[in-house]
Amino acid sequence: MTRLNNRHTHNIRPIRMTRRYTAYAEGSVLVEFGQTKVLCNASINVGQVPKFLKGQNTGWLTAEYSMLPRSTHTRMQREITRGKASGRTLEISRLIGRSLRQCLDFEKMGENSINIDCDVIQADGGTRTASITGACVALYDAIQVLQEKTKNKENPFTQHIAALSVGLINNEPYLDLDYKEDSTADTDMNIIMNEDGQLIEIQGTAEHQPFSRDILNKMLDVTESGIERLIQCQKALTQTNDETISID
Amino acid sequence: MTRLNNRHTHNIRPIRMTRRYTAYAEGSVLVEFGQTKVLCNASINVGQVPKFLKGQNTGWLTAEYSMLPRSTHTRMQREITRGKASGRTLEISRLIGRSLRQCLDFEKMGENSINIDCDVIQADGGTRTASITGACVALYDAIQVLQEKTKNKENPFTQHIAALSVGLINNEPYLDLDYKEDSTADTDMNIIMNEDGQLIEIQGTAEHQPFSRDILNKMLDVTESGIERLIQCQKALTQTNDETISID
Amino acid sequence: MTRLNNRHTHNIRPIRMTRRYTAYAEGSVLVEFGQTKVLCNASINVGQVPKFLKGQNTGWLTAEYSMLPRSTHTRMQREITRGKASGRTLEISRLIGRSLRQCLDFEKMGENSINIDCDVIQADGGTRTASITGACVALYDAIQVLQEKTKNKENPFTQHIAALSVGLINNEPYLDLDYKEDSTADTDMNIIMNEDGQLIEIQGTAEHQPFSRDILNKMLDVTESGIERLIQCQKALTQTNDETISID
Amino acid sequence: MTRLNNRHTHNIRPIRMTRRYTAYAEGSVLVEFGQTKVLCNASINVGQVPKFLKGQNTGWLTAEYSMLPRSTHTRMQREITRGKASGRTLEISRLIGRSLRQCLDFEKMGENSINIDCDVIQADGGTRTASITGACVALYDAIQVLQEKTKNKENPFTQHIAALSVGLINNEPYLDLDYKEDSTADTDMNIIMNEDGQLIEIQGTAEHQPFSRDILNKMLDVTESGIERLIQCQKALTQTNDETISID
Amino acid sequence: MTRLNNRHTHNIRPIRMTRRYTAYAEGSVLVEFGQTKVLCNASINVGQVPKFLKGQNTGWLTAEYSMLPRSTHTRMQREITRGKASGRTLEISRLIGRSLRQCLDFEKMGENSINIDCDVIQADGGTRTASITGACVALYDAIQVLQEKTKNKENPFTQHIAALSVGLINNEPYLDLDYKEDSTADTDMNIIMNEDGQLIEIQGTAEHQPFSRDILNKMLDVTESGIERLIQCQKALTQTNDETISID
Amino acid sequence: MTRLNNRHTHNIRPIRMTRRYTAYAEGSVLVEFGQTKVLCNASINVGQVPKFLKGQNTGWLTAEYSMLPRSTHTRMQREITRGKASGRTLEISRLIGRSLRQCLDFEKMGENSINIDCDVIQADGGTRTASITGACVALYDAIQVLQEKTKNKENPFTQHIAALSVGLINNEPYLDLDYKEDSTADTDMNIIMNEDGQLIEIQGTAEHQPFSRDILNKMLDVTESGIERLIQCQKALTQTNDETISID
Repeated sequence: MTRLNNRHTHNIRPIRMTRRYTAYAEGSVLVEFGQTKVLCNASINVGQVPKFLKGQNTGWLTAEYSMLPRSTHTRMQREITRGKASGRTLEISRLIGRSLRQCLDFEKMGENSINIDCDVIQADGGTRTASITGACVALYDAIQVLQEKTKNKENPFTQHIAALSVGLINNEPYLDLDYKEDSTADTDMNIIMNEDGQLIEIQGTAEHQPFSRDILNKMLDVTESGIERLIQCQKALTQTNDETISID
Repeated sequence: MTRLNNRHTHNIRPIRMTRRYTAYAEGSVLVEFGQTKVLCNASINVGQVPKFLKGQNTGWLTAEYSMLPRSTHTRMQREITRGKASGRTLEISRLIGRSLRQCLDFEKMGENSINIDCDVIQADGGTRTASITGACVALYDAIQVLQEKTKNKENPFTQHIAALSVGLINNEPYLDLDYKEDSTADTDMNIIMNEDGQLIEIQGTAEHQPFSRDILNKMLDVTESGIERLIQCQKALTQTNDETISID
Repeated sequence: MTRLNNRHTHNIRPIRMTRRYTAYAEGSVLVEFGQTKVLCNASINVGQVPKFLKGQNTGWLTAEYSMLPRSTHTRMQREITRGKASGRTLEISRLIGRSLRQCLDFEKMGENSINIDCDVIQADGGTRTASITGACVALYDAIQVLQEKTKNKENPFTQHIAALSVGLINNEPYLDLDYKEDSTADTDMNIIMNEDGQLIEIQGTAEHQPFSRDILNKMLDVTESGIERLIQCQKALTQTNDETISID
Repeated sequence: MTRLNNRHTHNIRPIRMTRRYTAYAEGSVLVEFGQTKVLCNASINVGQVPKFLKGQNTGWLTAEYSMLPRSTHTRMQREITRGKASGRTLEISRLIGRSLRQCLDFEKMGENSINIDCDVIQADGGTRTASITGACVALYDAIQVLQEKTKNKENPFTQHIAALSVGLINNEPYLDLDYKEDSTADTDMNIIMNEDGQLIEIQGTAEHQPFSRDILNKMLDVTESGIERLIQCQKALTQTNDETISID
Repeated sequence: MTRLNNRHTHNIRPIRMTRRYTAYAEGSVLVEFGQTKVLCNASINVGQVPKFLKGQNTGWLTAEYSMLPRSTHTRMQREITRGKASGRTLEISRLIGRSLRQCLDFEKMGENSINIDCDVIQADGGTRTASITGACVALYDAIQVLQEKTKNKENPFTQHIAALSVGLINNEPYLDLDYKEDSTADTDMNIIMNEDGQLIEIQGTAEHQPFSRDILNKMLDVTESGIERLIQCQKALTQTNDETISID
Repeated sequence: MTRLNNRHTHNIRPIRMTRRYTAYAEGSVLVEFGQTKVLCNASINVGQVPKFLKGQNTGWLTAEYSMLPRSTHTRMQREITRGKASGRTLEISRLIGRSLRQCLDFEKMGENSINIDCDVIQADGGTRTASITGACVALYDAIQVLQEKTKNKENPFTQHIAALSVGLINNEPYLDLDYKEDSTADTDMNIIMNEDGQLIEIQGTAEHQPFSRDILNKMLDVTESGIERLIQCQKALTQTNDETISID
């Protein structure tokens, strides 16, 4: 199976991140993995934490994920029209929030919180991994604003994280699947790692075919270096004041 | 009261429309009125109309409007989290749908329908008027695709429409209010006109102060020429294959 | 097109308002515009305002509109059965609340609030205009009770308002449309004015046919005198202790 | 404890039923038990029955009960605002539907159905018993219309039913409690009987104090003759073409 | 009509109650009436009462009833999937709560409250009566824990209550109907009594056929002794530390 | 850290599975992992598949997971009371359904479907892994009934699956965590395998601390043999007609 633009099975798609994409969010990144485009906004809530944390001098982060109705090939009904969010939406929202909380040391954050909003503008596979990767940069920026506003000198941002999907097609690992590839893969895995190459989250599902631990390890092998590249991209922004970074 | 960039009270903000902004929608326009940015997608449903129209050889159009949670200065809770759309959201959705239905001759459309989705990326006043103005172009493009797909030779698109807000500040009409101006205006009016300068919809509200018919007429006067300019912009796209148009 | 009972195109239907129609509401008016019957109740909430107004020594008013299931020719499903209010219901509720707030000077009201409930008993066109017209009297009465209860000597009720619909049939303005007329009108407009003949709200929609500003002005002309008559009716009650007023 | 207007403990309140109260419902009765006022509308659905009955040549009846927000001393929030009907509302709706189904022989009705809507205008105790009593007449009228429309010659209406509440105050049965009495009663019972004095439904609750079978029988004794009077009232309408009946 | 296992029409089914069925609830009873099995858990809330009781030094009890989706012959959709509890569910929840409140003297309970949860594992008729009968024992146990935790020496538990259904088949009262019997009965009655044989609640419905007061009394006669046996069962547990009691 | 009953870190808790636990479900298993107890019911729907599969001669399986309100140490509010299922509930329901679909060859099943219901009676950690493990047996039994009913001779059940959690405490893998252990673990992983030791699903989350691939492999090592034991238990039932199996 040949990939679009003759991409090698171990390669990620062209990546672009555009910072300060919208004007009001404290952190705002448009992230693109090939044709997949997600707007990641990070909002700060000064002096506000959820009820269960009040009075504990600690911060918090939650995330919400949503797809615009025509981000997909066929228009999807809005969730508000059905009256409830789908299980998939809630599951991805929980995943984004859980993994981005690993970027922060809440004890250095005071009683302040962060909302992450990942809204998919265009969906061509990998929307959850793009969301996490882009939101990490938006989070970084929002934390800078939070520190200024609260005159907090400690930096609660402790590490970058990034995410990639990997699938198994004809017993071969394919990195960063687009929508068409994802539909044919036997196994679908999403992996989130930090800048030290350690695992933050691993979720692998045998869609059609159970997989061996040997295959699991092969899939992890190809993902590691891809995530490393993504984190380099993130740092090209967070360690400068640049507005945009792109790699092919 | 001085306007941003010394804009004259009778002038509209810089306008930009970007066509084919997303890849999958049959019509897709990012419209910008100054800092207000709305993504307008038009989707075609071949062979599908609402139940009440089945078997009548006629088409239909509906619209939905929504704001991204951080399109505003302060983050808004998602409507799906509250479990229901606000009255404001539904009211604007109905307005967009009702007015865009005036662009079409449904009897020439066959049993096909259109969904308009207006998602506000950034909100600085006038999101409903920008939505209508941008969606009109997206609708035009979608209709072209529909005609090709259904091999329909008659063009159901009959006229362009565009919309502007106008407010009363210190007894003076201000055209195309931004958010800050809107907050101080005594009267707030939204006007939709067609390419012949006729009214499609007029909605005026005395926010603080009742207004005379004389004032009503003054507000209509300044709006007419602004809408004319908007329709020129629309036509610069629909009568060419250009991707973008902008005016200051 | 001949109207029912040979009514002239510029005339309103027989009007009746019955005060103290129910026993518990501080203001309670059954308003009838021909066959349209709406029960308008105004309730006072002493010492209660919405959260966003607390501590500001100011009052507030909200309104809710609803149709009984068999107020219409064909029974409508209750909104509670569907689980949500329709866009139309919310839009009319917002309109009633917004316009009746123009009757009050909230700074003279203390931290007290008013609920307006307009429940349509029988619907023959013009339910929203009848609601506003009747609720204005119920509001007047409720404010009297509020003043007594709070021993407030300033009267926050500043002006009467009333509302009428006007439509365009065969290019002729028809005032105060009944249901059958409304179904055939090309343009449908709802106008709310105060006792000085100034505009509180104007909402005009081209249902089938765009309309010129000339037509707009003709429609406003015929509406003005109709609203004047309605306000005379209101005052026949509020400036006396009478229970009922009717005009043909 | 003296009752309002020196009413005897075994007597019902003044009763009034007004037929054809609204214009569109096939049966429409305003029923008043003292200060309690309920609008009972019966609607016919020609050729429509619920799914589970389709193709069985049998009819059906359902009922819905609701209180207007200001039918009570203190304004109640609308159920649509909370997003769901209360248990009390659903329980009473079920009771009304279940008991009115006893008035009909569905096998003589064809595949047609009836909706009963009981909307409480003013609530002073006994709203469910008034609803059943008034709705029985509305049902009678609707069945006449149904027979005409469907040219059905058999009459599916088999018997009148009526309902009363009875409570225990100081060990004494009090018939047809008003709101104030209801609040102090130890036991609260609702009884529905047919025109032969047989029981359709009995619901008795020890609010504060368990009650003996002896007490149960005493409460039934006083209720029987009250229900007999109600059914006489109903028949004064259904056996004539009169519009209104009232008894003190 | 012969009953299962030749049961006499006046006899109840084999009964079993298993105490401490789950580990965490302060009171936990699995009650079985023949094939009907309900898990009744009583939970204490120390220092918590509903808002309307705060500061009144009094306790409270509420109850919730639910059926597992496959407690029935045919799988029922979960209520959470439909988005709302059915009227039947709410009605039974209210009945259980109302009747169990008769077991307690809230003035001796302090500001503490009890939640009763009755979850039907298997449904073969009489789930509401089994729920009340089993929950009474769970409530007894929970109250003991509450007294210990709050060091309250007064016992707020004042009396046992139990419940049975009785139906009319071929004009004969049948006690404690199973599902199949319930489907054929002409009249369906649920009776709740206390340990002194007094009535707590009576709910009788003519499903097909109105019933006379004579029949009502016959049904009450056969139910009395059945409830007496149930209360003996309850006491065999509450007056000992036994874990289980069963009778045939 | 010592485990309850001196359990070795690599050992699972005492396991028990009770088949035919309820009478009506085609497959019904009460599964116990230590103090965790889940009722797993499998229901067959003969001739019914979801819309998107109609006419394709293929089967389907869906699953729903729910916790009884007092399955936990502190009572949880019912989801129906809040009006929506939590993200956690939906996520686990999706996981159970997705993994159990791997047990079936839908092309051998005809147009029939299965509902899996996992209702947690008592929760002491590992409710999702117990659910999957128990439901696999219930599914096996339901498939036997389905084959008989549909006279289908091919067996669509292709393989057993079972699931276990494993966590990292003090850098040491602990198998099959109970609730208390789960609260202190740094990493939490759920692993589902088939009878050949291949992976069906792997979900690992760094709760406090990122983890290396080395650690990942250690956790997989200890889980493999645990799952093997679970599948032996399952087969002790499915390959006999026994009602119960337990291991310590």
